[in-house]
Parts: sequence; structure tokens; C-alpha cells
Amino acid sequence: LNPIRDGAVLPILHLNGYKINNPAILARISHEELKSLFEGYGWTPYFVEGSDPDTMHQVMAATLETCINEIQSIQHTARTNNIPARARWPMIVLRSPKGWSGPKEVDGHKVEGFWRAHQVPMSNIKDNPAHLEKLETWLRSYQPEVLFDDTGKLQPALKALMPKGNRRMSANPHANGGLLRKALRMPDYHAYALALEAPAKVTAPNTKPLGKFLRDVMRQNMHNFRVFGPDENSSNKLDDIYEVSKKTWLADYLPEDADGGELSPDGRVMEMLSEHTVEGWLEGYLLTGRHGFFSTYESFVHVIVSMFNQHAKWLAMSKEVPWRAPISSLNLLITSTVWRQDHNGFTHQDPGFLDIVVNKSPEVTRIYLPPDVNCLLSVANHCLSSTDYINVIVCDKQKHLQYLDIESAVEHCTKGLGMWDWACNDAGHEPDLVMACAGDIPTKEALAATAILREHFPELKIRFINVVDLYKLTPKTEHPHGLSDRDFDSLFTTNKPILFNFHGYPYLIHRLTYRRTNHDNLHVRGYKEKGSINTPLELAIQNEIDRFSLAIDAINRIPSLQAIGGHVQEKLRNRQIECCNYAYEHGVDMPEEDDWTWPF
Amino acid sequence: LNPIRDGAVLPILHLNGYKINNPAILARISHEELKSLFEGYGWTPYFVEGSDPDTMHQVMAATLETCINEIQSIQHTARTNNIPARARWPMIVLRSPKGWSGPKEVDGHKVEGFWRAHQVPMSNIKDNPAHLEKLETWLRSYQPEVLFDDTGKLQPALKALMPKGNRRMSANPHANGGLLRKALRMPDYHAYALALEAPAKVTAPNTKPLGKFLRDVMRQNMHNFRVFGPDENSSNKLDDIYEVSKKTWLADYLPEDADGGELSPDGRVMEMLSEHTVEGWLEGYLLTGRHGFFSTYESFVHVIVSMFNQHAKWLAMSKEVPWRAPISSLNLLITSTVWRQDHNGFTHQDPGFLDIVVNKSPEVTRIYLPPDVNCLLSVANHCLSSTDYINVIVCDKQKHLQYLDIESAVEHCTKGLGMWDWACNDAGHEPDLVMACAGDIPTKEALAATAILREHFPELKIRFINVVDLYKLTPKTEHPHGLSDRDFDSLFTTNKPILFNFHGYPYLIHRLTYRRTNHDNLHVRGYKEKGSINTPLELAIQNEIDRFSLAIDAINRIPSLQAIGGHVQEKLRNRQIECCNYAYEHGVDMPEEDDWTWPF
Repeated sequence: LNPIRDGAVLPILHLNGYKINNPAILARISHEELKSLFEGYGWTPYFVEGSDPDTMHQVMAATLETCINEIQSIQHTARTNNIPARARWPMIVLRSPKGWSGPKEVDGHKVEGFWRAHQVPMSNIKDNPAHLEKLETWLRSYQPEVLFDDTGKLQPALKALMPKGNRRMSANPHANGGLLRKALRMPDYHAYALALEAPAKVTAPNTKPLGKFLRDVMRQNMHNFRVFGPDENSSNKLDDIYEVSKKTWLADYLPEDADGGELSPDGRVMEMLSEHTVEGWLEGYLLTGRHGFFSTYESFVHVIVSMFNQHAKWLAMSKEVPWRAPISSLNLLITSTVWRQDHNGFTHQDPGFLDIVVNKSPEVTRIYLPPDVNCLLSVANHCLSSTDYINVIVCDKQKHLQYLDIESAVEHCTKGLGMWDWACNDAGHEPDLVMACAGDIPTKEALAATAILREHFPELKIRFINVVDLYKLTPKTEHPHGLSDRDFDSLFTTNKPILFNFHGYPYLIHRLTYRRTNHDNLHVRGYKEKGSINTPLELAIQNEIDRFSLAIDAINRIPSLQAIGGHVQEKLRNRQIECCNYAYEHGVDMPEEDDWTWPF
Repeated sequence: LNPIRDGAVLPILHLNGYKINNPAILARISHEELKSLFEGYGWTPYFVEGSDPDTMHQVMAATLETCINEIQSIQHTARTNNIPARARWPMIVLRSPKGWSGPKEVDGHKVEGFWRAHQVPMSNIKDNPAHLEKLETWLRSYQPEVLFDDTGKLQPALKALMPKGNRRMSANPHANGGLLRKALRMPDYHAYALALEAPAKVTAPNTKPLGKFLRDVMRQNMHNFRVFGPDENSSNKLDDIYEVSKKTWLADYLPEDADGGELSPDGRVMEMLSEHTVEGWLEGYLLTGRHGFFSTYESFVHVIVSMFNQHAKWLAMSKEVPWRAPISSLNLLITSTVWRQDHNGFTHQDPGFLDIVVNKSPEVTRIYLPPDVNCLLSVANHCLSSTDYINVIVCDKQKHLQYLDIESAVEHCTKGLGMWDWACNDAGHEPDLVMACAGDIPTKEALAATAILREHFPELKIRFINVVDLYKLTPKTEHPHGLSDRDFDSLFTTNKPILFNFHGYPYLIHRLTYRRTNHDNLHVRGYKEKGSINTPLELAIQNEIDRFSLAIDAINRIPSLQAIGGHVQEKLRNRQIECCNYAYEHGVDMPEEDDWTWPF
């Protein structure tokens, strides 16, 4: 926290000594250790300890006063001197007995100040007169006759102590952040588009223009927008953001940091190699009415699965509560994806987060797989303007083939999925094959397979479909984005073979489509836990999402080719082996295949 | 760590100051804060700091000596006095420059001692003579002419410095724990069985006898078996274990702990409310050749998804490495499940971990859903004897209806899935319906639905199938446990309606079965994110896995009932409403329904 710019937090650790059955660890280390721990975390701890209620109330009040004075003094000094030094903010350790003021003991067992106070301190009240008496004594100890009048209402003098309006804890607008939320001022995302002369001819890093777009979103919203990431935004190629705002940094600063360190106490970019800390920051920021964008490595987004689940549940419930105002969506860019782990390998290959996302309420979950720069811009623009969703965007940071100019990308992403007419040759005919795909590398391989098939079998009619909005695949009854069955059948046909080349584990596509008419003809390729430190094409071949495997499979599936396609299949298998051998020997893919572009 | 009984660990924090692009946070706080932090964590930190290699080697050697002496002294004192006091073990903070002894700077940018040293310090060596020269100077600084002879071999005097045999880091048997592993001595699990006079007549808590079984496994394996859990084993009803071994506890001990605290410095039960810490302990314990059993709440097992993924990947790869000896399986009991969150509610309802498990290699993953006490014993016995798997067992801790005596349970679990003949009335006939289920509550509801249908339509022939080993559902080509298509078709028929009542999210069953002949007739019920603080039957009704919903659906699916079943459906819908109203009013389920037992 920057004491000039930011607010303050006064954490209170209520250390009542026990969990449901065990002592709390921090309650059983020495005072010195506990003090050291919080000093090591950067705080100045104050201890409020005891069990006499009257004394404790006074000590707590005095300590709160001290802490608030200290916070104000830190802020005042920083704001007067204009030096945003890192402060050792105060915090309170409140040690009070668990089950405080409850029964001291029941049936000879200690209750107050022990874990037995955790749940029901006395059971079987109905049939145990001794327990009933203890319960009555306990409850009478709070002197209800003083607190309430004869009709059972709270005494007016006590009622008058309650805070009013927004000072009530439940009515604090920061606890209903949607009330404070202001829509982002958005730059026109068209301005960051990559100009393309023709589809699938050039490559570019997918996330770089997104960084420029986020930079200008930041520029126009310097009070309520932050960018979050456990991995450096530089590594994810979003570093243009630093032109406008640096990484928040209040710890020691060295002269060399000025050379590319991009650190500043004023920064609005939140980086820490701790996925769950970053997710926690972002959730807090959104819940209090602000906006954020989070990018993280695909394989390690699993660290926040549990937090994702709970946030999704929270959003789903909050939509059922009429007084809760919508908050900004949680925008999560999953990058450094499975198909481009050229030097990281098997540990970094895990596209399974999406399988968790689809378990959660369709009212709050959205999944996008933009295949190129312009689709990513269109999707990100849409997500940043939305509320009450978790938008999961999957897009790799490396250089990838570029497919759509910005107008086509906007049309395509607005539809969510669609035919790419330049890649289809079935207009006016029944297609022999539907080639479908979702994700950057799978799209490239599906396109290359389409080209191979058309080169070898010029009469073949292939329909090419790309999917950006994954939920389009599922029936409308299952998700608000779902295509109607009629539309789905028109696109995917009711009886032609479909090859679907997918970014993630293949089953997810079956899960989304198993109710569709033509599901029996749908054959999905995806990641199947085969991988090491491989070149992209090697990795694709191992998991059979490569152009050759797809073309070989298509020949098997298309009735007119089954008898005549064997020779082509053999050639393709040979080529696969050549490619693998080349990659093994040179450590990179064969340039002719790697530099492949759309030939028609 | 108990200094009398256990070994020791000397942690070394290598604080080289930077990550790929950012400073490390711990490198930029004051020396005092860093020292406080590790003292707060309970260590005695020693600092080795500097950049002159010769000095640093000496300081490091001396510090290592000091630390090892200190460790030995702690152990000696504890073992002499026989007082297992908690020790403040030494640890080392090694601060050295990142990219130490590499180029100081390149192109005017600092490299050694800065984040720029993280990846390739100098690029484009081929075309940049200045970089090439710098590279050569750098590499020559290590004096290869002194280290190697004329043929490029390491000098014999240097080679002689290398440790031999098991002292080599890669040959340390603790790093190939399977070499040290001894199979557990197992008590006969039949001895813990629940005696049943008839199926589905009585209820019992499912995990309680497992606790007795684990107690006796512990008793016979007091040197290489531990039980792990973030939640108290008492809460999970495994507390009989404490008769043999308590919870490891070396922090402060109070007199009241003697009354049911179950704490001891000698304990072999590892409890800490931190799922990832516990998972880390368990992985370390298994990897070094020991055995363990981990129980945790279903909803919060998501905290360790990322660790599960990496352990599964590690196991899959280790099976491909011939010199790696098999290690004990990671046995994970998922309890406090979605269907019994009577007072915890929506946040505690999440059976989605299984959707992650099925993404991982079929060579290393196993999933079991034992529906009752005896099946759980049979499954647990099998899992504790296995190697190189992650065994996920899903079984709730509450009281549940009991189905199988121990002989039947062993047969059933060995087959993995099967018909329960006492619940079937289709012997000698074609069934009108296959009622299938997996999981405790879903099994009870499926049985009750079967009874409702038979009571109303006495001629109806229903086949009842329960699934324990989930992978039986998938084709043999996909998982070694998969049933052959022939067996699957015989059991599930090729053309009759199947209702499948499932513990988890329903799609998982489709995922496993979508290639089966009769998949188009398979209708799955499961959790669909509907829940709050509900009674079990209310929760079942909301997610449509209850007896009434199943019976209503069966009437829709069975051709002979479609026309005549409407009146019964109406009655069942009324009963559903009555049950919900009763639960709302009384906070518990209607006793007639809750105490339901098998009527035939």
C-alpha cells in the first residue's frame, strides 16, 4: 500500500486458540515468535490479550485508537513530505478465549477457552435437566432484563448506539461494490488492430497489441483499473502497459532498477509470483467496485481452482439477491499455453482448467479461445465492459499465424463461431467433411490439414469452422450462449463427418455437444497428456492434433476417400516421421512446415 | 520434527535477488525483517552473504559445519534427556548474485546480480562479434585448461573429489524412494466389517470402521505409515486411530490438552488446516519410500488440484524410467461430500475434483465410490497395497444406509461394478429399465426410486447396477480398468433406457461412456450447482437426483409407462412438494422418507 495514494487496512488476527478439535498453531508458539512472524511480514503488531470482558473492551478500544492514530500519522507524514515510503503498518493480535463468556465447563470437560466450545457446547437439552439449567444460567448471564423491554424489544438507549445508514456494516457501500462501480472509459480497440492483406499469411505475437490496448484502458482509468499477474507481464508480452503505469513496488529500490525494472510506488500493475495472492487481490478489487485484468500461465492457473469455484458460487448467489449491484467481471487471460512449451515441457502442459469452469453456473461463466490478435482484441474489449461473469480467455503469447482482419474478427467473435469462407470450398455443395477447431495452434493445424486434403483431392468439399466462444457448442437450454439446435445442425450438418481440433482435453467438446444431432460423427482431437520439451509440431504430432494426423483421420472418415486414400495416408505418415526426426536433430521444426501459410 | 525420533532437514534459502524480470520480495526487505520472518517461522536463520567466490565458499562451509553441529547437538540433548522439546532448527539464507560469475554487463545493461541474468545473457552470438568475445572471455574465466586434460576429460584429481555410490546426489536412495519401500503389514480388513442381516435396512457412519482399520494398519507399521488430514480426523470419524498414535504436536502443551486433545510429540497423525501443506508432506513421505493415507473435505480438495496434477505427471513419467522403483500410491479419501452439507451449504458443495482426475494418465489414476462401510473397507485395503497410483476414494462420513455384507462387498468391489441381485427383478426377462448409480446418497435415492416404481407398476422389470470403480465405465482402450464393450453391452443393454444417478457433476458419466453402444439411452443425474443449507432430501430434489425425480423420469423413458404413468407422476410431484415443505418447516427430512429402507 502506498501511504500517499492508497487507503489503509487494519488487520485483526483474532487468535482464540482453537479450531474444531485442535489448538491453533499460532496460539501455541511463544509471544516472541508470533511477534517476529508479523514483524517479518512487515507489520507492527499490537497485542490485546486477556479474558476479563471489561478490561478487554478498554484495552481493545485504546489499541484501536493507537493504531488509527498511527495509520493517520503514516499517511500524514508521507503526504506532507510526498515520500511514498513503505510503512510498517499496525495490526492487532486479539487473544481472547474461544467460547468467551459461554459455560466454563460441561460434564467435567473444559469448554470456555478450549476447542469444545467450537460447536454445540451442551447437547440434548430436552432430556438433560442439568444441561438445561446450565444453558439458562449462561443465557441469563447476559442480563436480558436489562437489554430488552417487557415486549422483548431492544431498549431505545441501546438501539440508539447502533450506527446509521452507510455506517452499518451491512450497508457499507464497499461491501456492495457494484454501487460504487463506474464503467470503464474505453479506447476504441480497432486502433490496435493488426492490418492483414490476406488470411493466414503472416505471424505475430498474439498478446502484444492487447498490451497496448490495456495500456490505454489504464491511461483513461487511472483510479479504478489494475492489471494483475503472477508471471511478469513482460514475459506475457503485455509490457507496453508500463508506459502508463509501473509495477507497484514499495520495498527497497536499487539504482539498477531504473534500467528496465519498471518499478514504482505509484504503479497500478500488481505482480507477485503467487497465483492465489494475486487472485485474492483481484477479487477484493472487483468486490469493492473496481476493474481488473489478470493474466497467468495455463498450467498454473490450477493453483486458484478453489478460489475460482468460490467466486463463481458467490457471483451465482449474488445474482439471486436483488439488492446486490453487479460488479465487474473477473477477466482471466490464460496464456503460455500447452502447445507452446518449447523449453518448459510436460509440467507446463495442462489445459484442464476449462473442465472446472464448465461445472459452474452458466449464468456466470464464459470461455473464449480467440485464435489471433484481432479476435483477442475484440474479446478483451467485450469482457472488460461486462459485469458479473468470470471471463476465461485462452490465448498464447508467442508468435502465431494471423487469420482475420479486424472487421472479420469482430463479426466472428460476435457470432462466437462461424465458417471462414476463405477456408471453405463447399459453398453451393454438400460438404464431405466439416473441419472445426478452437485455439491458436489447433486452428493452424486444422487449416494446414484442410490444405493438404484439398491439394491431394481437389474435388473434396470441406467446410471450415472456427470456434471462439466455447459455450456456443452447447444447447441453448444449457447456457445462454448456446446455439439453437437448428443453427447447430445447419453449421455442423446432421450426417457428415466432423473433425474437431481442440486446444484442451478432447472430452470437453463431447461434453458440450453430446446432445447435438450429429454427435456420433464428431471426432475430437486435443491434448492427451503426451509431451515433453518438444517443438510445437512434435507436440502436436504426439497428441495427434497435427495436420498429418487430421488429414489421415479425414481420409478414414470420408466414404469417398476410404478406398483411394491409402497412398496419401502413407505419404503423410512418412512426412510425420521426417518432421519428428528433423525436430529431434535440430531442436526446431522443419521450416517448410513451421512457416506454412494458407496456399489458396 | 521430533528431535528424538525423526531425522532433520537443513533448509537453504538461496536468495539470489531476482526472478525472470522482477526483484524477489524477500531480497528487498531489511535484514531485520527477513531474520524476524524466519524466526517467526520457528527457525534459527544463518546468513551467508557476499559475492567474492573464495570468501563465500569458506563462509558457506563454516556455516554448514555450524548448522550440522547445532542439529546434532539438538538431537543429542533431546535423546540424552529423552525430552522431545520443539527445537529451533538452523536454516541458511544464502545471498549471492544472480548469474554469479557471469558477464557483469552486456550492451551497457547490468547482467550479473540482476534479473537480466535469468535467461540468455547475450543473444545473437553468431552475428555479433562483441557478444562472441564476451562469451569467450566469460567461459575462459573458468580456466578449462586447468579443469580438463588435452583430450577434454576432467582431470583425475578433480574427478576423485566426486562422491561415490549412494553419496552421489542422483543415487541417494531417498531420491528413489521405491528402493527403500517395504510393503505394509496389513491386518485382515474382514475383521472390521459391519454385519448385515439384509441389504438396505440399517444405517451406519461409513468412515468409522475405516478408522479402526487404519488404527491397526498404523499399529503394525509404526515406522513407515502416517495418516494425514487438513480437517480433524475426529470430524471425519477416523478418530479411533488415536488409540495407537496421536497427532504430531511439538508446540506448547497445556494441561487441558490431556482431556481429548490427542496431541503428542510422538504422534504419527499429521493434521494442519492447510490442504497444500499436508499434500506436500504426504508427497515427500511417499517419494522417500513410506506409506500414507490422506482424508479431506470434498469441496476443498480443489486447493491441491495443481499439486495433484504435478504428482500425476511425475508418476506417469517415472513409470517410463526403468531405474525408478515404484512408490506407494497416494491414497486420498474425499469425504464430507456434496450431498451431506446440512449446515455448511453451497460453498461446501463441489464434487468437481474427479473431472480433473480423469484428465491425467490412465496409468496412474483410479477412482472409487464405495457406497457403504464394507465396500469402503475393501477399497481401502486394495489401495493401501498398491503402488504408483493416485487412488481417489469418495465416501461420506455421515450415517448412511448399508447395502452389502463383507463377502458381497468384496465381490462387488473386485468386479468394480455389478448388478445387485436383491434389488433386481429382471432375472430371466428383458429389463424395462436399467437403474444405475455411484456414490452413497445417489445409491439410496436410486434404490428408493426402484422401489417406488415396482410398488406402482408391479410388472415392471428393473435391473439395478451400482458402480464403485468409476473407470469400469470407460472403454478398455481408454483405461486399464475399462470393461470390454461386450461386457458393458450385456450389463447396460444395447437398447433399454438407463438412468444413472451419480455423485458428481453428471457430464463425467457421459464423458466416460460416450463411446458405448447404448449411450443415446443413458440419462445421467448429478450435482448441478443447486444448493444451500439444505436437508439431504431437499438437496437431492433441487438437483433432481431424488427418488421422485428419478421415478418420474423413468416413467417418461419407459415406453410402456408413457401413456399410463401420468397419475403416478402427479402423485410423486405432490410428494416432492410435501417433502420440501416439511424440510423447510422442521429443518429435517420427513422421517418416513429419511428412514426409508428397502421394502422387498
